[in-house]
Amino acid sequence: MPNGQDEQKSEVLANSALADVPTEFDFIRRLRERALDSQSSQTNQLAVGIGDDAAVVRSSGGKDTIVATDLLVEDIDFRRSTVPPYFLGHKALTVSLSDIAAMGARPRWCLTSIGLPEDVWQTEFLDNFYEGLFELARRYDVHLIGGDTSRTPERIVVDSVLIGECSANAAVRRSGASPGDQIFVTGSLGGSAAGLRLIERGAHLADQNLASNDTQALDQILLRHLKPEARVGWGIILGQESLATSMIDISDGLSSDLNHLCSESGVGSLIESSLLPIDHQLVELCGRRALDPLQLALHGGEDFELLFTVRPNEVPRLPKRVDGVGITRIGEIKPASDSVKISEGTRVWELTPSGWKHF
Amino acid sequence: MPNGQDEQKSEVLANSALADVPTEFDFIRRLRERALDSQSSQTNQLAVGIGDDAAVVRSSGGKDTIVATDLLVEDIDFRRSTVPPYFLGHKALTVSLSDIAAMGARPRWCLTSIGLPEDVWQTEFLDNFYEGLFELARRYDVHLIGGDTSRTPERIVVDSVLIGECSANAAVRRSGASPGDQIFVTGSLGGSAAGLRLIERGAHLADQNLASNDTQALDQILLRHLKPEARVGWGIILGQESLATSMIDISDGLSSDLNHLCSESGVGSLIESSLLPIDHQLVELCGRRALDPLQLALHGGEDFELLFTVRPNEVPRLPKRVDGVGITRIGEIKPASDSVKISEGTRVWELTPSGWKHF
Repeated sequence: MPNGQDEQKSEVLANSALADVPTEFDFIRRLRERALDSQSSQTNQLAVGIGDDAAVVRSSGGKDTIVATDLLVEDIDFRRSTVPPYFLGHKALTVSLSDIAAMGARPRWCLTSIGLPEDVWQTEFLDNFYEGLFELARRYDVHLIGGDTSRTPERIVVDSVLIGECSANAAVRRSGASPGDQIFVTGSLGGSAAGLRLIERGAHLADQNLASNDTQALDQILLRHLKPEARVGWGIILGQESLATSMIDISDGLSSDLNHLCSESGVGSLIESSLLPIDHQLVELCGRRALDPLQLALHGGEDFELLFTVRPNEVPRLPKRVDGVGITRIGEIKPASDSVKISEGTRVWELTPSGWKHF
Repeated sequence: MPNGQDEQKSEVLANSALADVPTEFDFIRRLRERALDSQSSQTNQLAVGIGDDAAVVRSSGGKDTIVATDLLVEDIDFRRSTVPPYFLGHKALTVSLSDIAAMGARPRWCLTSIGLPEDVWQTEFLDNFYEGLFELARRYDVHLIGGDTSRTPERIVVDSVLIGECSANAAVRRSGASPGDQIFVTGSLGGSAAGLRLIERGAHLADQNLASNDTQALDQILLRHLKPEARVGWGIILGQESLATSMIDISDGLSSDLNHLCSESGVGSLIESSLLPIDHQLVELCGRRALDPLQLALHGGEDFELLFTVRPNEVPRLPKRVDGVGITRIGEIKPASDSVKISEGTRVWELTPSGWKHF
């Protein structure tokens, strides 16, 4: 979950002498080993534990239960000054909807833990936050069933918990990709990162009464950051129809998330930069503002598009659009020895994960 | 979740001109109505939503799924200087185990979302935190299956998510008490609040090599705060054997939690102060330190004992002890018109909720 300032800091750290401090991904790997060591009689019911977009528990009755949690921290994942509470409520649910979608599951129930400073409690913050959350929840028939409310000394913190379900064994993991599988993404890339950068330079949503075509285009980019949409319908169909061999949502950034997927699957990949779905409005806006749309598409986070792989013979079965959103083939899975690469014309280079990391 | 300073502040607020600012309980009531308004086709699968210790979702296969979340915020719910990471890991799981126990369910799976400042990340904090959590999880055969790790600007925040299960329709709600039911608590009361106050006055755990009988008694009180135990075994038995008509865990304080239970059940109650289980070691320690053990037992939070009601004809079926922990009858459920009262000899007064609240 990037905001510009912290992303920079993270990049500096990654390249400095501190680079040998374990990253959060090292930590998650160790934690996963430890959780598995701590064997229990229940492990046979655990289908997917730590290290995927969500956990999967085998339920009785032919269903699996999928659980995702996402922590949003003020001044790390969002700024109160630029993200109004309605949008924050929408986003808190979106991040978890996206995790459930990335497992190929249907979202069902949510719980929201929220910590607030005293002065925020005395405002309409929570009313507006839950308005954003409920509006989105209704759209996908998700029910708020619980959570916790706490006071914090200064900053807002939200933990969004989402429970979904899918048929037994139907959850789509990060680890199922094989060489030859075709790599797809839903929607378009880079919009959220562009929106964030524009907001940090002072851009804001236009007054709808005065909006021209130009400001409408700008608004659409800003909304990609302020009000991102999870690809819930795509997730359900890809899972239900067993179309995807592996899947992850693009929350950290394509370069990072493709590396996560390939590392879990024990494969390499080659994507082609000219195939990346970058909105033409984004290209235009970037051109006038010295932003590089390709960099945003590769490394910008929070697009909440789905990145998934499909066996070549299954490609014809893919629907063209779901809920008005299309998909684009961007490359192919390769053997592990090929590592994770990107080509631009005749040049090919290593696609180093350069998206968001917290540590 | 009290710590001394914030509890005081909360009491001041409750008695000041700000008392008409809605409390968190008002908020939860409104949120519950709103969540119910937002009807969906799933409501028939929702057994218990917002407003109990945990949510209950009807699963297929004769089982219900129980979900609890608990947010712990540094400097509100704990202080880094007095609660070592090992104890914090233990406590983060205890608070949720206690919620699941209060539903009469068996804990199964946990997810932990944790936010940390950068300087804490670079220490052994997480190793020690998870050591405390895993040790407790193993004891109850609970499996860590996921969570989220995030950076925070300054303070540690933990959201503990616990998933349990029980037979369909067997979850014990806060709302099932009827006049005539006998009121019980597990274990003893006031120890955690006393431990907190002693820690705030500078007390700390003794070096085990030097420990005398006297310091061992002090340690036991301090550990009631530092390493509280949820009544997991009692919760499972009371639920499984359909022994309790209603149940809640004592996290805010007996006075508050008994009021929550009575309000949800639409009943009154009368408890007898001489019956309250107050540890004799606690009475001795308090005597020498100008603390009132009855006040601590009535209003101190985080004892994590279970408060439950039993029909008179079922009382003989209650086990004497579970996992070495006994129970005590402290009073009786009365009609709503009697309100929530406490007697001390011949005097009877209103038991006003004076336990912990965040807002």
